[in-house]
Amino acid sequence: MSLPEAAPLLQSGGATFLAEIRSQPGALRALLEHDDAFARVAARARERSATTVRMVGHGSSDNASSYGVYAFGLLPRWTALRDSIALTVHYDTHLEMAGSTVLALSQSGQTPDVIQYVTRARKAGAYTVALTNDLDSELAHEAEDVLPLAAGPERAVAATKTYLNQVAALALLAAYAAGEGARYAKALADTAGLLEEAIPSLERQVKTMALPFASIGRMFVIGRGTEFATAREIALKLLETCRVAAEPFTATALAHGPVAALDPLFPVWTIASSDETLPAVVEAAERVRAAGATLVASGDAASSLADAAYVLPVPKPPTPLLSPLLSVVPGQLFALALAQAKGLDPDHPAGLSKVTLAQ
Amino acid sequence: MSLPEAAPLLQSGGATFLAEIRSQPGALRALLEHDDAFARVAARARERSATTVRMVGHGSSDNASSYGVYAFGLLPRWTALRDSIALTVHYDTHLEMAGSTVLALSQSGQTPDVIQYVTRARKAGAYTVALTNDLDSELAHEAEDVLPLAAGPERAVAATKTYLNQVAALALLAAYAAGEGARYAKALADTAGLLEEAIPSLERQVKTMALPFASIGRMFVIGRGTEFATAREIALKLLETCRVAAEPFTATALAHGPVAALDPLFPVWTIASSDETLPAVVEAAERVRAAGATLVASGDAASSLADAAYVLPVPKPPTPLLSPLLSVVPGQLFALALAQAKGLDPDHPAGLSKVTLAQ
Repeated sequence: MSLPEAAPLLQSGGATFLAEIRSQPGALRALLEHDDAFARVAARARERSATTVRMVGHGSSDNASSYGVYAFGLLPRWTALRDSIALTVHYDTHLEMAGSTVLALSQSGQTPDVIQYVTRARKAGAYTVALTNDLDSELAHEAEDVLPLAAGPERAVAATKTYLNQVAALALLAAYAAGEGARYAKALADTAGLLEEAIPSLERQVKTMALPFASIGRMFVIGRGTEFATAREIALKLLETCRVAAEPFTATALAHGPVAALDPLFPVWTIASSDETLPAVVEAAERVRAAGATLVASGDAASSLADAAYVLPVPKPPTPLLSPLLSVVPGQLFALALAQAKGLDPDHPAGLSKVTLAQ
Repeated sequence: MSLPEAAPLLQSGGATFLAEIRSQPGALRALLEHDDAFARVAARARERSATTVRMVGHGSSDNASSYGVYAFGLLPRWTALRDSIALTVHYDTHLEMAGSTVLALSQSGQTPDVIQYVTRARKAGAYTVALTNDLDSELAHEAEDVLPLAAGPERAVAATKTYLNQVAALALLAAYAAGEGARYAKALADTAGLLEEAIPSLERQVKTMALPFASIGRMFVIGRGTEFATAREIALKLLETCRVAAEPFTATALAHGPVAALDPLFPVWTIASSDETLPAVVEAAERVRAAGATLVASGDAASSLADAAYVLPVPKPPTPLLSPLLSVVPGQLFALALAQAKGLDPDHPAGLSKVTLAQ
């Protein structure tokens, strides 16, 4: 894609990262063209009564899996878990997996222990499905079925559009499993439009925010329920592109210890979305303020958080379950702006490569 | 209990925290006196075919649950998960829970959303079990069965002996579920002896280590498999008692992004224990050193990590699955020593209370 002229964030490094953030509405639409594959995989999982969903992946893929816990829990009411790769691969434990659908998330389809997990899970009786950008990858061949992530080539090391499409893919698969696929496909298409409208204004807002954060070394990112995935993903972007020690917590976990670490130089990014977890998030934000920390309020209910130093609202999605597709974007753009303010190149963070082969 | 004279760490605040760390061998032995209760609950879970284990708890209780994933996976080969409280309590989702054993972990037995989770899980068909210090608490009454945590009153806000006993309780229950209860009860008793021997020398070692860390604001704590729970618990101690932004990662997750944040002022505490995950931990430590970060090597295989600035080894347990009972102690003692070096009172961290009622 070509960049528009006078791109507000295009000052130094990060052109690829920015282009990929901007391309997310298009990536989401591309995913929706594969609607039928999601319907088919959901039908097979139901036929096989494979209603325990074991998700495996690392980094952003694991963050997206935190969303899957809620998508499968709230839509078909299936138990979904981020399964331990170490248990099956490193310890070689033979768990009974009949009745399980394995969703293996890997952008490249090359993650070694994810591939090994799928091989073993298949032998243990699971229905194995790969969700990957590369339909010809080793992972895609190893799994019984493959779902296209359809995000197109991702070149920046820090994932953006592949994360967004993973979240959308989990929502779509869960919706088909619940017999609500068509409704959600429509809602996802509408969400792509909302994303497109929101991005330009968010770009301008994060630019003015980034400078005061340039000397910050640590942050917390708070989310609950469906938005815990978003908290994890924003924290990871800040770690990998800005060298900020950013740690995600649920609103409740914050009160069980970490709140004691806060002080005025320890900002807390809080994601407030309009769903049943909002009261817990509002309460957590009050504790953050009581500890004297700087509060950044984001999400479609950002205005519910009192006394925030910065407010980055996003539009309300057609249905609350899709809010994480919108609420992650301010975090992605803020990470880009902060990296630029710190003179770092978010396209090529030190010590990282696009395909991670670590075991 | 009375403190010995000339306690090496008893310089300023933290007398209660230190006394409770030292009391852990005794707390572990007290737990083992309730052996029969663990045998009985394991038998009931088997009778009811309740072989999916849903663990719920916050803070240290949730950290211990990370260990439960491996204890139940490796011993009876049951799938255990840290279940989402938000899904059942906040979103009021009705998951099918026949075939599940719920383990509700709460030191006080008063955690509101854990109690609400148990009420709903029981209605949904789960076999519900409370693991708590207070056998007369609301949680104990709400669950069908109760397992005594038997750690005795814990007065320091930061949990130590209740965490250790939670880990031991999960190991013991998993062992009985696998028909290996007697063997593990013996191994746990032996571990209490090893702990008792190790603590005095660890106290001396952390004291000399703490001063160079007094200006450190952030750390990573790395563990894999059974030791991921330890990494989470040590990070939480550092957050709540030392105001250090300490974040736990698995060895593999480190490589998927967070390694980019490291620099020479960003120490990494790495737990290396002698089990199947050791090669992954050794590889992660090499990446840490390549990034120029200061490496702290701990665990019973600490000497396997090359080029560590500090080495805090612990004894090998009678069986590898019990290593987390030993490897957490250097972290507890280091948190105490660092809090004292920073002039903080680890008995009463700012903004925390012993019983957290946050939702």
